[in-house]
Amino acid sequence: METIDTITGMQKRSEELRLSGKTIALVPTMGFFHEGHLELMRVGRHLADKLIVSIFVNPTQFGPSEDFEEYPRDMEGDLEKAREVGVDLAFIPAAEEMYPDGFQTNVTVEGISKYLCGISRPHFFGGIATIVTKLFNITKPHLSIFGEKDFQQLAVIHRMVKDLDMGIEIVGVPTVREPDGLAMSSRNSCLSSEERRSALSLKKSIDMANDMVGGGEKDAAGIISAIQALISSHLFTKIDYISICDPITMEDKATIEGECLLALAVKIGKTRLIDNCLIDID
Amino acid sequence: METIDTITGMQKRSEELRLSGKTIALVPTMGFFHEGHLELMRVGRHLADKLIVSIFVNPTQFGPSEDFEEYPRDMEGDLEKAREVGVDLAFIPAAEEMYPDGFQTNVTVEGISKYLCGISRPHFFGGIATIVTKLFNITKPHLSIFGEKDFQQLAVIHRMVKDLDMGIEIVGVPTVREPDGLAMSSRNSCLSSEERRSALSLKKSIDMANDMVGGGEKDAAGIISAIQALISSHLFTKIDYISICDPITMEDKATIEGECLLALAVKIGKTRLIDNCLIDID
Repeated sequence: METIDTITGMQKRSEELRLSGKTIALVPTMGFFHEGHLELMRVGRHLADKLIVSIFVNPTQFGPSEDFEEYPRDMEGDLEKAREVGVDLAFIPAAEEMYPDGFQTNVTVEGISKYLCGISRPHFFGGIATIVTKLFNITKPHLSIFGEKDFQQLAVIHRMVKDLDMGIEIVGVPTVREPDGLAMSSRNSCLSSEERRSALSLKKSIDMANDMVGGGEKDAAGIISAIQALISSHLFTKIDYISICDPITMEDKATIEGECLLALAVKIGKTRLIDNCLIDID
Repeated sequence: METIDTITGMQKRSEELRLSGKTIALVPTMGFFHEGHLELMRVGRHLADKLIVSIFVNPTQFGPSEDFEEYPRDMEGDLEKAREVGVDLAFIPAAEEMYPDGFQTNVTVEGISKYLCGISRPHFFGGIATIVTKLFNITKPHLSIFGEKDFQQLAVIHRMVKDLDMGIEIVGVPTVREPDGLAMSSRNSCLSSEERRSALSLKKSIDMANDMVGGGEKDAAGIISAIQALISSHLFTKIDYISICDPITMEDKATIEGECLLALAVKIGKTRLIDNCLIDID
């Protein structure tokens, strides 16, 4: 597996690959790989000739009081896992390479970014859209793979690619879960064993919501207040949001009809976790 | 000369050209071609195998009270002129093709855009950065040609290309002037013959400033107030700004030293004109 840490080196390599007729898939990551990341790589491995993974903990998507410094990192372990899963090239730039002095350009997706995670993390999606634009311009992929666990991020990327005519196919991959249902996340490593038990309240909420809808419940407020009660009955939990919304625009829905997204963000101690599912009304 | 009016058609054609090893130059324009535009095309013609010109009057860079509707247009004449100068392909999309319903993504260059034209036209450079990003993603050029008459626009594009790692060479071309010194602009066609005489005050100001600096003047405020007096002595003039600033950051300079940009924006009747020069201290 090749590793490249400069922007111009990566651009030159990707241009060569394109000119030789190879298709390129990019999996952009912040590293500290778990099965969820590896699943994205396996999908990318099947869809393109060359598979690039970027590892970069992007400072601009963290707020000043958020966990940029504490975000877990393991470059050596990550490179080993990427190699095992068949990645061709890892792009691992330093922060100074990506954001040199004088940097002042931002990409923003106005509508979708205002809701859900955009409320408590106002700079998050701007940071995401900007870094992903940069990574696309650097690695020149034909397609790029993202996890559905970060559903709103995926919606923002879809919208950005369409609006800016990036001509890149965006592939969403279903959430990978632990045997007990907890959605895989690099941040799960920050949970104490007691917090780990409370973290299950997210998946339990999703299951309960699906049961309620299966039983005929159509009122979003009713489902949301049942979820509030369930989560609050677990220790160390602090709800950021519980939303039932349109999965494209992220606007709230009062009634379960058509496609609906249930999305949750909950702090478990100091660790903020998210989870979601599309609510199935059939 | 080929013409293409769809985004996907243009992307397919540019990808074919790139895969066949051809280099592509793009001249992005709003049409109503004068010698200044044709000069950009001649430069592009020399620098790349294939020369693409885009013609699109971009609604998002006009404010609500600005002259989008009145902006002069002449598609037939433009295509004829482009053909004569050796353009290979004209990209001429409709507004609905570029901004379909639900469009919500913006590219902004924060620092540079705050000064000069960014003060009276707060949405202008965001509109420019976004449309140029789209045009780059659609036409996939190796290099792109811009006029130095729009000096701040050129600085914004330079910064954006660097910050977002677009990997496109940006080429600036010196301002083309009428025999009497007026900088060529599509908006000159909106001037009455009396206004046309007052429009000369911009170039006269530049010449006077260079004379003053040549004579040893180092005080920016002194030069600016001499220009104010000169322009105000002409009929129909209303000064938007007169700035002596750093040509990279656009921040004001109090003293003429190092590289300095003199930039002017003046309304002549209803028509807003701009002009600039780099002040030579040698």
